[in-house]
Amino acid sequence: MDLKIPFTGQKRLVIIGGGFGGIEIAKELKDQDIQIVMLDKNNYHTFQPLLYQVATGGLEPGSIAYPLRKFMQEIPNGIFRMAEVTHIDTDTQKINTDIGDLHYDYLVIATGSKTNFFQFPADVSGKMMEMKDIPQALNLRSYILESFEEALLTYDETKKEELINIAIVGGGPTGVELAGALGEMRKNILPKDYPELDFRKMQIHLFEAGPRLLAAMHPENSDKALKYVKDFGVNVWLNTMVTGYNGQEINLSNGKIVRSGTVIWTAGVKGNPIAGLPETAKAGGNRILVDEFCRVKDTENIFAVGDVACMIQDKFPKGHPMVAPVAIQQGDLVAKNILLLMKGKDAKPFVYFDKGAMATVGRNKAVMESKGMKMGGFIAWLAWLFVHVMTLVGFRNKLTVTMGWLYNYFTYDRTLRLIIRPSKRKDD
Amino acid sequence: MDLKIPFTGQKRLVIIGGGFGGIEIAKELKDQDIQIVMLDKNNYHTFQPLLYQVATGGLEPGSIAYPLRKFMQEIPNGIFRMAEVTHIDTDTQKINTDIGDLHYDYLVIATGSKTNFFQFPADVSGKMMEMKDIPQALNLRSYILESFEEALLTYDETKKEELINIAIVGGGPTGVELAGALGEMRKNILPKDYPELDFRKMQIHLFEAGPRLLAAMHPENSDKALKYVKDFGVNVWLNTMVTGYNGQEINLSNGKIVRSGTVIWTAGVKGNPIAGLPETAKAGGNRILVDEFCRVKDTENIFAVGDVACMIQDKFPKGHPMVAPVAIQQGDLVAKNILLLMKGKDAKPFVYFDKGAMATVGRNKAVMESKGMKMGGFIAWLAWLFVHVMTLVGFRNKLTVTMGWLYNYFTYDRTLRLIIRPSKRKDD
Repeated sequence: MDLKIPFTGQKRLVIIGGGFGGIEIAKELKDQDIQIVMLDKNNYHTFQPLLYQVATGGLEPGSIAYPLRKFMQEIPNGIFRMAEVTHIDTDTQKINTDIGDLHYDYLVIATGSKTNFFQFPADVSGKMMEMKDIPQALNLRSYILESFEEALLTYDETKKEELINIAIVGGGPTGVELAGALGEMRKNILPKDYPELDFRKMQIHLFEAGPRLLAAMHPENSDKALKYVKDFGVNVWLNTMVTGYNGQEINLSNGKIVRSGTVIWTAGVKGNPIAGLPETAKAGGNRILVDEFCRVKDTENIFAVGDVACMIQDKFPKGHPMVAPVAIQQGDLVAKNILLLMKGKDAKPFVYFDKGAMATVGRNKAVMESKGMKMGGFIAWLAWLFVHVMTLVGFRNKLTVTMGWLYNYFTYDRTLRLIIRPSKRKDD
Repeated sequence: MDLKIPFTGQKRLVIIGGGFGGIEIAKELKDQDIQIVMLDKNNYHTFQPLLYQVATGGLEPGSIAYPLRKFMQEIPNGIFRMAEVTHIDTDTQKINTDIGDLHYDYLVIATGSKTNFFQFPADVSGKMMEMKDIPQALNLRSYILESFEEALLTYDETKKEELINIAIVGGGPTGVELAGALGEMRKNILPKDYPELDFRKMQIHLFEAGPRLLAAMHPENSDKALKYVKDFGVNVWLNTMVTGYNGQEINLSNGKIVRSGTVIWTAGVKGNPIAGLPETAKAGGNRILVDEFCRVKDTENIFAVGDVACMIQDKFPKGHPMVAPVAIQQGDLVAKNILLLMKGKDAKPFVYFDKGAMATVGRNKAVMESKGMKMGGFIAWLAWLFVHVMTLVGFRNKLTVTMGWLYNYFTYDRTLRLIIRPSKRKDD
């Protein structure tokens, strides 16, 4: 069955995914003579860099999500459909979705990434928590709080230890920022909420397989981040891989065993490709191989941008880092290239402009670097806040995030400690 | 198994339910020589009067919920447990909960009310939506938005009509306020979000079995409310009962049939009692019969307050109205009476101080009455906003609700249009 989309006589660009890359393309092409069909399995854009704040009760989901239909109001030549794309047929130029099939003239795959558990089988990875989307972040929030509630009920000290400990796997920005936020919660909030629990016994573990945290940043910043998380009382295990987990005990590559009922996996992501592309376009980490124009290898009119795209360039033999700026810049390029192709001109190659990197570690502390400049501490933390607020989509989100942060900062509080697990259509 | 609660040597008061009544009692007794154990199946207090704003995307759940553990931080002699109470044994003075048994010296049942579908069997009521708690309100929000998404996909006009229509059963404050909010959404938001749908065809129905809306208020205010909702284009059916529903078609007592895939039932509530109380304490509408001191009939040390309590007084032959002020005032009285009983003094009887009633109908319009004074329009609407903000628990909630309302008011927007259905522990 064909998907019901108005036929305008224009060429049709279908964008799969309303993340940073997808919305950039739509914005760039909004006044052009081309129909833009945006598809996403959710009806909102997610600002992933702040998911950990939703998970730790500092922000509401509505503050970091933006309704895609509201975004599409600004795109007069745009149409939105909530849909999951299951297959691409490059011969007929059609995609199959859960709500019907659709013809495209140009196609952009901007589906981002998902958690990569690597070698772990489903019965092990299924016991770990993820934090790649809003339902997962809300779920993590509820799960951690439920564990504390349960810890109050037991006389068994081993069981209690298991319930109050939290382990984070992966010392990248997500792992480090989450560890900082949890360290702050343990210090300022949890002892007041749970006066009966002894939070000196609560262990927050951070496992990193490599020799330093924030491996993508300068070693000096890695050292600073290490100091900051340690100051929050986080146990950092460098050069340590998680080799197994049974729901209670974590096996480590150094032979040790650590006890925790909550394991949050932030140690890897992989692309989220769609079936039907040429075999030759398969790259490592589930990504889609694209040329320097972001065009999917061995296709004519299909592009991929952001986390899901793997573009091999001299300085990036394994593709670009899977971060928002790459997605935005590639989105920008693809918009321009589609216009060039429509005019019969040559496409332009991608040149990554690396603005730098930053990560925050709880209250008042962050590290950042840009163009050789390195900085840590309070100023870096303010810069981090500023950059994140400015990058948020929509005035309301900028406002509520700023207000929420001001409130949390001055009250040392994170009031969003609600255990909410919405039900199906009909409640219990 | 006994619930693990520190033994302090004090008398133990167990409060079941952290609603308006329950938290009032804890506040009143916070500096007294008595242990207070607060039990609730959720870890948050819900400000029910604003649930309809969560359902219609105007407010975040975190703005109208307040963590009970944060509340209990102010109660030095208080303990909180997230628990569902299943049975009361009045002989041994013990309650059974899903997390263990607990002895009480004094017990207060403040469990509120739940939806009453009256004669409808589960296969009919199961097709209707409720709005009595936060998961239900979030669920309703997602369900309505999903229906619009689905409406875009069909060429079948009957099916489309079914998907975009909304029916509300019950012309009390909840039904009227919800109808107003939906009328506003249809006017200001939905046409922009769904330019492909013809919202002139969207019907919002409000069914009321009695001869007027807001039956508890003065007829003049009923007339005003009727005018206000009609101005928002709501189809009001007075003297009309819903007699059946099959998921698509609503059967009405006047023989007519109305088509809507969404039916929200606000036409009745019933008490939420707990098993184990004397048979003689059973009152109409699932409520618990209490004497003038709020003591459960034929018990010594068990009280009930708020929606679940039925106190027959001269002016209230069927018990008091099931509204927040009654719960708060009864909570206040029970706190005082427990202190009096502990001192061997006589308890004091309940005297209801009726502050009046109010209801809002969308933007700029409300009705209110108090002590013979009646008012409608913009001033009543401002008063409604003020009273609701002031009644919210916690400074942060007062702040975020005020900010949210200001934003919504000046932008004519409700940005919280996210379809979020959090998953179980592990995401798909």
